[in-house]
Amino acid sequence: MADVNRQWLLRARPQKHLRLDDFEYREEALPAAPLADGEVRLRNIVFLCAPTMRNWMDPPGNSLYPSVPLGRPMMAPAVGRVVASANPDYAVGDRVYTMSSWQDYTTVPANAWRRPTRIADGISFVEAMGRYGLNPLTAYFGLLEVGQPKAGETLVVSGAAGSTGSTVAQIGKIKGLRVVGIAGGPAKCAWLTGECGLDAAIDYKSENVAARLAELCPSGINVFFDNVGGEILQAAIDNMAPYGRIVLCGQISSYDSDEQPRGPRNMMRLVYGSIRMQGFLCGNYSARFGEGVAALREWTAAGRIHYREDLHSGFDKLPGAFIKLFSGANEGTLLVQIADETGASR
Amino acid sequence: MADVNRQWLLRARPQKHLRLDDFEYREEALPAAPLADGEVRLRNIVFLCAPTMRNWMDPPGNSLYPSVPLGRPMMAPAVGRVVASANPDYAVGDRVYTMSSWQDYTTVPANAWRRPTRIADGISFVEAMGRYGLNPLTAYFGLLEVGQPKAGETLVVSGAAGSTGSTVAQIGKIKGLRVVGIAGGPAKCAWLTGECGLDAAIDYKSENVAARLAELCPSGINVFFDNVGGEILQAAIDNMAPYGRIVLCGQISSYDSDEQPRGPRNMMRLVYGSIRMQGFLCGNYSARFGEGVAALREWTAAGRIHYREDLHSGFDKLPGAFIKLFSGANEGTLLVQIADETGASR
Repeated sequence: MADVNRQWLLRARPQKHLRLDDFEYREEALPAAPLADGEVRLRNIVFLCAPTMRNWMDPPGNSLYPSVPLGRPMMAPAVGRVVASANPDYAVGDRVYTMSSWQDYTTVPANAWRRPTRIADGISFVEAMGRYGLNPLTAYFGLLEVGQPKAGETLVVSGAAGSTGSTVAQIGKIKGLRVVGIAGGPAKCAWLTGECGLDAAIDYKSENVAARLAELCPSGINVFFDNVGGEILQAAIDNMAPYGRIVLCGQISSYDSDEQPRGPRNMMRLVYGSIRMQGFLCGNYSARFGEGVAALREWTAAGRIHYREDLHSGFDKLPGAFIKLFSGANEGTLLVQIADETGASR
Repeated sequence: MADVNRQWLLRARPQKHLRLDDFEYREEALPAAPLADGEVRLRNIVFLCAPTMRNWMDPPGNSLYPSVPLGRPMMAPAVGRVVASANPDYAVGDRVYTMSSWQDYTTVPANAWRRPTRIADGISFVEAMGRYGLNPLTAYFGLLEVGQPKAGETLVVSGAAGSTGSTVAQIGKIKGLRVVGIAGGPAKCAWLTGECGLDAAIDYKSENVAARLAELCPSGINVFFDNVGGEILQAAIDNMAPYGRIVLCGQISSYDSDEQPRGPRNMMRLVYGSIRMQGFLCGNYSARFGEGVAALREWTAAGRIHYREDLHSGFDKLPGAFIKLFSGANEGTLLVQIADETGASR
């Protein structure tokens, strides 16, 4: 057990680009206040750094996502262990996933959105937040439920070498799709067409994405899984096949800026193409996470899903690791482990 | 029978705003060429003037809709009578709807997109193009199939006093929805909340649409049926409820301009709201037109659908009537009848 509660607070709203200075380190005494009815207190163990967390740092406003209050710990998905419970559904020692915050100990209210989900037996904390965590589950439900792909169709994935995108692309191959990935740089593209078995990859840093999509998808794109937005979304829309489905997962191209992500310039293409554009959150499918984890475990065991992880150790690493997401430099699911499986701080 | 084939040709691509000069009148000899296999020749009788036809006047390019070639008759939906057939599915005298063109006689190829659809017995040509024509069918299938509304939900319709929009709004009331219409001017708004029975109407010419939507839809918009696009679409997106559905029918606000219709500024709202945006064409449901017409006839007979028509008579009226669509001045479905039911020219 830790003897202090370490915290990373949101010190300032980012001005255009995220900086280390936007966060502030603090230590508090261990939380001792009694829990309110329904609350659960967690010892956080592994945090996921996900691009969408950048949106939560923006001011509260006209959006459907939460805004972290200034001076409060940064909100983040985490896995951890229940250390105190005033909720009959959870016992001390339970291993859970929840929407947590950057500190050793987080008290989670009883509302539905943050309701902790139990981690399946046989899965470590790191696996529960990484290989079988939110990003691959986002890939699984986003592609299969929102994208509704049919074998033989063409799938295009943006951010294809990323944590979510690479899983989307490989599930696409498992489901019999032709898969084209869009990623930044020759190394990522080579990994996609090599180890991951994609049919083609487009390097957005050196190629004209719209022109390459037109070449590679002569009958149009049936499913576009978008992690990026902006000009890449535009290029995909210009190449969608009639009745195409656009799975809106993220818009990372504009998170770390003052601009809101813009929609397509040519809305009539959506009308005349009978094209569907659908936003979603992984949490919409939380009742079916068990099914998703089981499928991912089976494909992993069969060597059909290649997975990369960028695992950092130590509470001090949190802000720096998170910022790395927006440089395009990281490879694989970005995790920060702040305690070992027994709860000893790192 | 006419003794010449009158035509309105597309003379020039509109420069920003549509003008009468963009069309050119010509008379040809009656078409006498033998039909190719599968072709059908029609005597056009009633034309629908639909806003989306404005898009067909733009240059061919990166879009999924057709571009009328310069010097050729303007393309338009019409009903008429088969006067010659090289297609075993159609006999001389058959009354049909098809994608036709601004002339007395149109030879329709055998491809699926333009395949003529027979008009049900007991429906006049004017009714087949108006009250039971493409616009109300667009409303029927767009709202019910694409929008998937549930009784008790809130429906917002833009262009609500228009031919399609007013039918959408009234079908919404029939299906037990709370319905808010957006229209231009107090007369249109009064018609919507009076005769049509809507719960509320917003006059976009004098009111702040986003603010009024927030007031009128405190739990958010469940279904937004959009005929307009632009800032009105933006205002609706800012007020969508989680899991909301946006039915993309048209984007009239930007048709008659050099600008392509722009998508939303805040795509992350679609992601975090799990919002679906779906384009569609009425023709996607052509196999089910009979069902739609039957429902519309039943509701009309029961006095539950109020319908307005702006019927012009005479081939010479075509371009002027069409241009009227973009001034916001017309009320009701805009039809031009160029021959009587027997085929005598008007």
